[in-house]
Amino acid sequence: MYKINDNYLKLPGSYLFSNIAKKVAAYKEANPNRDVISLGIGDVTLPLAPAVIEALHSAVDEMAQAETFHGYAPDLGYEFLRRAIIDNDYKKRGVDISLDEVFISDGAKSDSGNIVDIFAQNNTIAVTDPVYPVYVDSNAMSGKTGEYLVDKGCWSNVIYMPCVAENDFVPEIPEKTPDIIYICCPNNPTGTTLNREQLQKWVDYANQNKAVIIYDAAYEAYISEKDVPHSIFECDGAKTCAIEMRSFSKNAGFTGTRLGFTVISKELKSGDVSLNSLWARRHGTKFNGAPYIIQKAGEAVYSDAGKKQTEEQIAYYMKNAGMIRESLTDMGYTVFGGVNAPYIWLQTPEGMKSWDFFDMLLERANVVGTPGSGFGPSGEGYFRLTAFGSAENTKKALERIQSL
Amino acid sequence: MYKINDNYLKLPGSYLFSNIAKKVAAYKEANPNRDVISLGIGDVTLPLAPAVIEALHSAVDEMAQAETFHGYAPDLGYEFLRRAIIDNDYKKRGVDISLDEVFISDGAKSDSGNIVDIFAQNNTIAVTDPVYPVYVDSNAMSGKTGEYLVDKGCWSNVIYMPCVAENDFVPEIPEKTPDIIYICCPNNPTGTTLNREQLQKWVDYANQNKAVIIYDAAYEAYISEKDVPHSIFECDGAKTCAIEMRSFSKNAGFTGTRLGFTVISKELKSGDVSLNSLWARRHGTKFNGAPYIIQKAGEAVYSDAGKKQTEEQIAYYMKNAGMIRESLTDMGYTVFGGVNAPYIWLQTPEGMKSWDFFDMLLERANVVGTPGSGFGPSGEGYFRLTAFGSAENTKKALERIQSL
Repeated sequence: MYKINDNYLKLPGSYLFSNIAKKVAAYKEANPNRDVISLGIGDVTLPLAPAVIEALHSAVDEMAQAETFHGYAPDLGYEFLRRAIIDNDYKKRGVDISLDEVFISDGAKSDSGNIVDIFAQNNTIAVTDPVYPVYVDSNAMSGKTGEYLVDKGCWSNVIYMPCVAENDFVPEIPEKTPDIIYICCPNNPTGTTLNREQLQKWVDYANQNKAVIIYDAAYEAYISEKDVPHSIFECDGAKTCAIEMRSFSKNAGFTGTRLGFTVISKELKSGDVSLNSLWARRHGTKFNGAPYIIQKAGEAVYSDAGKKQTEEQIAYYMKNAGMIRESLTDMGYTVFGGVNAPYIWLQTPEGMKSWDFFDMLLERANVVGTPGSGFGPSGEGYFRLTAFGSAENTKKALERIQSL
Repeated sequence: MYKINDNYLKLPGSYLFSNIAKKVAAYKEANPNRDVISLGIGDVTLPLAPAVIEALHSAVDEMAQAETFHGYAPDLGYEFLRRAIIDNDYKKRGVDISLDEVFISDGAKSDSGNIVDIFAQNNTIAVTDPVYPVYVDSNAMSGKTGEYLVDKGCWSNVIYMPCVAENDFVPEIPEKTPDIIYICCPNNPTGTTLNREQLQKWVDYANQNKAVIIYDAAYEAYISEKDVPHSIFECDGAKTCAIEMRSFSKNAGFTGTRLGFTVISKELKSGDVSLNSLWARRHGTKFNGAPYIIQKAGEAVYSDAGKKQTEEQIAYYMKNAGMIRESLTDMGYTVFGGVNAPYIWLQTPEGMKSWDFFDMLLERANVVGTPGSGFGPSGEGYFRLTAFGSAENTKKALERIQSL
């Protein structure tokens, strides 16, 4: 008789954003005439950049002719894309990464969920709290998180590192030493980040304790301050302790186009075993590459035109972020983030519960955000708004919140 | 200190096709003037059908305008595609599948590798032998296969069901009862298949023993004989014991375009727990959908023009298959497959080892095939050729083999 993985049964409810989608769908069905504005899930709204569109059309044309048709991609992804990544994201920042240290994927969500595969079950993970739910859920699914404590809203074998207003959203070294440390910088959901010195401290700590850092840099394109590193590999010693994940979703609007990558240096080793080779084995066995035409689109993001156009998109969203920050501050809210990230993290008024604030905003302002408690126990009393809406909708949403 | 998943260290060598690719690359580097023809990896060569190309261009245009831009896809995939699949692949064959039983993915390789996630470690799998390596390797990675026995070329806790000339490539019910049974029909690599009665026997067996069948139907479009089911759900009772996986790679040439799907009926339950809900949870947590433009391309495969054009592609490949079958038979080889599948499975001459035959063919005929032993112990003494080459190359390869 087959046995299911009952770690799945320990998971509380469904995936946060699926939950929100269901709540919103139910509200819309009950109120078909209401115009609901979503500043909830971190989904972009601007169309793909012209350079990307051009590359897509051109790659589609290639797929129409036997001479230029592309079947299975190379295991790690096309060299043209890996080279563009190395040159633009690393070499320009003084980081030396080789071709076989970059793994092209269908996105950072898949990579950050699948990376648990290469680690044993008896690892203790540490997460900043609040945190992107995929890190914890994927570890829970593979039995690394102990039991879910319903009353506390957390797992018995996860080290939560509170990031709250009181500590400026900077995680402190935990009492118990973790094996795997998840850091997302700039942070989702808080929109805050670590500067070079703060991140270097974590790299040193990981090397000293033989911990590995899973570093999610999906939002690096939004960094505006100079002393914030774009890659963890800008820190000394990161190659021997860190795995970096990147996405095209937020810097180039690929949420529905799907492309990302993971960088693992060959210097990252557990005894004799290189984690690069473990990930290569997983990649080669359980994945068959991102589509050729999407990899060509990714390459176009790094062209001169692509860079200029995607920078304009980022500036557009960051203008929204500034508008949200200012308006909410004017209304008397306490807000964080929005300077190096497209997320604004606000404290709910009068200590309202995050989900109560969600319901109120949905029902009375027809605005969708994300309840902070959905990201972890320390997110309670906070709420996330994204800058990814259109400027017009963002303005309208703020006016509605103002009139509450 | 972090601990790696040392199940990975038990895996013998690298993934079969990565291995072959490396061997071929080394040969080409040493012999730059040789024209090597690959009938090895099951990669298609015909360009995408015009209807698919048109859909891709049109979807790319949608991504260029804010009004028609698509961000994150629905968790299970777009309804337009799931509906086309249900209508064409199931309803027309008398199978009733509902919208929330179809999960769109980036391909059957990912799905067949990732499905292990929802099963506990203490399951014993049974595989037909020879077998597509991903089934066994992904179970090995998750610790379900025991130890690798180098001298026997097999795993201590896997039930191998030999499929050889002596039993007409029909797997027999094993002595030990398995928990999870992998069946690929039409079969990769043997090119043979099961008829309705033979498959029904397995469905009945699974239901009686509370086993689950992972049914890989990636090659169903190549079925030419009437009594061969295209879906396991054509068998009575399959909904309570089977998970079906499908691919667009072989029926529409999407090897480099990436699209597939998995069907899990809500009737498939372990106690109270529906496997559909477990897979939905995995899908929602560790995956973010296939690209919108690729899902639109998949929809076009089911249009009238798309069906006609992809049927022509299949006919083209099956003409190659017939040519390989006939030529090799004329040369005195014993061959199987190639009637309901694009694979020809031949016995190596004079009991040569599969890898020796591979080397000989590569070096003396400059033709690449796949050694049978790479698919499992019972593949030793066999060799796979695919019909996915161009007609011209296929003919040329056969002439070279003839002249050996």
